[in-house]
Amino acid sequence: MNVVNDAVPVSLNPKPPVLLDVVGIGSPLLDVVSRSDDALLERLGLPKGSMTLVDRDAAEAIHASMGTTIQVSGGSAANTVAGVASLGGSAGFVGRIADDEIGALFSHDISAIGVEFEAAIVPSTHEGSGRCLVIVTEDAQRTMATHLGVANGFALEDLDQGIIERAQITYLEGYLFDQAPAKEAMRAAVRVAHDGYGSVALSLSDSFCVDRHRSDFLTLIEEDVELLFANEDEIRGLFGATTTKAALEALDDLGIVAAITLGEKGCVVVTPSGRVEVPAVSVAEVIDTNGAGDLFAAGFLYGMTHNYEPVRSAELGALCASEVISHLGARPQRDLRELALNVGLLD
Amino acid sequence: MNVVNDAVPVSLNPKPPVLLDVVGIGSPLLDVVSRSDDALLERLGLPKGSMTLVDRDAAEAIHASMGTTIQVSGGSAANTVAGVASLGGSAGFVGRIADDEIGALFSHDISAIGVEFEAAIVPSTHEGSGRCLVIVTEDAQRTMATHLGVANGFALEDLDQGIIERAQITYLEGYLFDQAPAKEAMRAAVRVAHDGYGSVALSLSDSFCVDRHRSDFLTLIEEDVELLFANEDEIRGLFGATTTKAALEALDDLGIVAAITLGEKGCVVVTPSGRVEVPAVSVAEVIDTNGAGDLFAAGFLYGMTHNYEPVRSAELGALCASEVISHLGARPQRDLRELALNVGLLD
Repeated sequence: MNVVNDAVPVSLNPKPPVLLDVVGIGSPLLDVVSRSDDALLERLGLPKGSMTLVDRDAAEAIHASMGTTIQVSGGSAANTVAGVASLGGSAGFVGRIADDEIGALFSHDISAIGVEFEAAIVPSTHEGSGRCLVIVTEDAQRTMATHLGVANGFALEDLDQGIIERAQITYLEGYLFDQAPAKEAMRAAVRVAHDGYGSVALSLSDSFCVDRHRSDFLTLIEEDVELLFANEDEIRGLFGATTTKAALEALDDLGIVAAITLGEKGCVVVTPSGRVEVPAVSVAEVIDTNGAGDLFAAGFLYGMTHNYEPVRSAELGALCASEVISHLGARPQRDLRELALNVGLLD
Repeated sequence: MNVVNDAVPVSLNPKPPVLLDVVGIGSPLLDVVSRSDDALLERLGLPKGSMTLVDRDAAEAIHASMGTTIQVSGGSAANTVAGVASLGGSAGFVGRIADDEIGALFSHDISAIGVEFEAAIVPSTHEGSGRCLVIVTEDAQRTMATHLGVANGFALEDLDQGIIERAQITYLEGYLFDQAPAKEAMRAAVRVAHDGYGSVALSLSDSFCVDRHRSDFLTLIEEDVELLFANEDEIRGLFGATTTKAALEALDDLGIVAAITLGEKGCVVVTPSGRVEVPAVSVAEVIDTNGAGDLFAAGFLYGMTHNYEPVRSAELGALCASEVISHLGARPQRDLRELALNVGLLD
C-alpha cells in the first residue's frame, strides 16, 4: 500500500495553466432575430429596448407573431467573450445548455471563434437550451423576450472554478441577477477571482433588470467590482439619478473604472484619476444595435488586459461596436483583429 | 341509401380557389452560414461556387471546421417564393421536412413572410430536416455543402397537387434533378400545371448540377418549360457552349423566355421577340452573393405575373438581388415591396 504524505506535494510535472484574458459567465442563448415595427411591440406588450423573461409557451406565441428570422448565437456575456477572441485575446465562457440542436449551434459558434467553453450540459428536456426572441425596429433598437430554458437553472455546481482561477478578468452579465440560483455561483466566482489575481467586471445589462435588483447591484459593485459597464439608462437607474451628470458624479465617488456607453455619442470612461470622453465610430447604416454594448465591452476588456490606456481601450470598444451594429445579430461577422489592425488600433 | 347522380354536380357552394402567382417546389433547408477563406475550401475539397451533396457525417465534419455561423432559412426555390411574397405577390411552396427544430424554424420563416407552405412533414429521424453549410469567401462567393436530410426523399406522394392547380407559375429548382424520387413529382407537377392554365419555370441552380443531368434538363426545357433562369456558367453548360454568346444563340432557337444573370454585369432577357440587357443595381458592399439568383428570379416572376414588360421585371429582379447580396443569408431582410415602391418599380 502506498501512502502519500500530503505534506509533500507529488510532482506530476504539471504544465502551467493557460491564463485567459477574460472569462464570461452568463446565459448561452440562440438569438432569433426579426425586423418589425413598433405596433408589434405594443401588441405583445414588450417595452421597447427591454429584455423580458418569458416561459416557453409565451416564447412560442411571440415567435409565431414575428416575421422571417435569422438565428445567430447570442447571450450578452457570450457575445463579449466572442468579441475578445475575435480581437485575438484569450477568452473563456461558462454557461448551461441542454443536449439539443440549439445548444449544439451555440457550442459550435463560441468554440469556432476561439473561446474556451466550459459548458454545463444537461440532458435535453422540454425546456431546452435558451433562446432569445429579438425584435429589431426601424430605429435599429432591439427589444428582447428571452426563454432561458435550462440556463435558468445555472447554479454553483455548474461553475467551473478552474477556469475562473485562470482569468485575468471575470466578466459577469447583470442578467444573472434575474436567476436566483445563479447568485450563489456569481458570489463563488467573485471569491475565486479575488482569492487569486483576477479582477471582476460587471455589465448592468438592462435598465429594467437594474430596477428589479438595484440594491443587490449596488452592494456587489461597492464590494467586489473593479470594472463596470453600463449605458445611460442603466447607470441613472442604478443611482436613482434623474440625469446622466448626476449618475457620473455618483460613479466618481465609487473610485472604480467604469465605461458608460452613450449610443451614437460615444462613451465616457470614468477612472479614479478622472473622466474622458471617446466618440463613437460612425457606420454607413445602423441596422441593429443588439450587441453594441456587449462588443464595446469586448474591445474595452481586450485593451485593459493588454496594457492599453483607457482611451485606446474605449476606442477599440467603439470600433467593435460599430461592426456589430452594421448587420443583424449580436456576434461579429468580421474578424475584429483584422479590422483593428487596419485602422491602427492594434499592432 | 342516397344515390348521387354524378352527371349532376352537387353544389356545396364552394369558395373559388385562391390563385397564387408562383408556387415553388424544392428542398426546404436551413442555411448555416460562415465567412471563411479559400484555404478552407481547398482543405475540404469543395469546388468554389458549387453545391455539393453530403451525408450527415460529412456535414458534421464540415460544420466543425467552419467558423462562427449564422442560421437562416434557405433553399433555392424557397428563397425565390419568399421574395415573391415580400414583394406583395401571392406564393406557395411545397417541400419535405422532419418534425424537428430545424423544420420548425424553416416553417416559421416561410409562413411569416407570407408564403403558403404545403409541407410534407415526416417524423423526426436521425436524418432530420435539411441543412446547407454555406461558406462565404472574401470575394462574397458562396460554396455550399448540403445535407438534404428528409428532403432527399421528396416524392410524388409529397406533392400537394391542389396548390399546383392554383399556381400561375410553377417554379422548379434544378437541384431536384439530384434526387431520384423527386423526378416523378416534378413530372406530375408539370402535368398538373399544363393541364390547367399554369406555366412552368425552371432554375438551372448550379453548373455542376447541370453537368450531372444535362440531357434531362434539355428534354424538360424543350418539352415543358416556358421560363428559364440560369447564370452564364449554367447556360453554357446546358448547351455545351464555350462562350455565353453561343449559349444565348442556342437559347434564341428554343423560343422560350429566359433570364440569364451575369453577376455585376446585370442580366440578359431572351424572348421570342429578341434580347434585352438590364444592368445590375449597385450596392455599397457585396457581402454574400448567396441567393442573388434566387431573388433575381423572385423579382422577375413577380413582374411576369403582374403584366410587367420583361425589362421592368428584370429591373425588379436586379433590385431584389441587390438587397440579398448586401448581407449574409439568402432571404430578404428588408421588405422588398417597400424597397421597390421607394425606387418607383412598383406603384
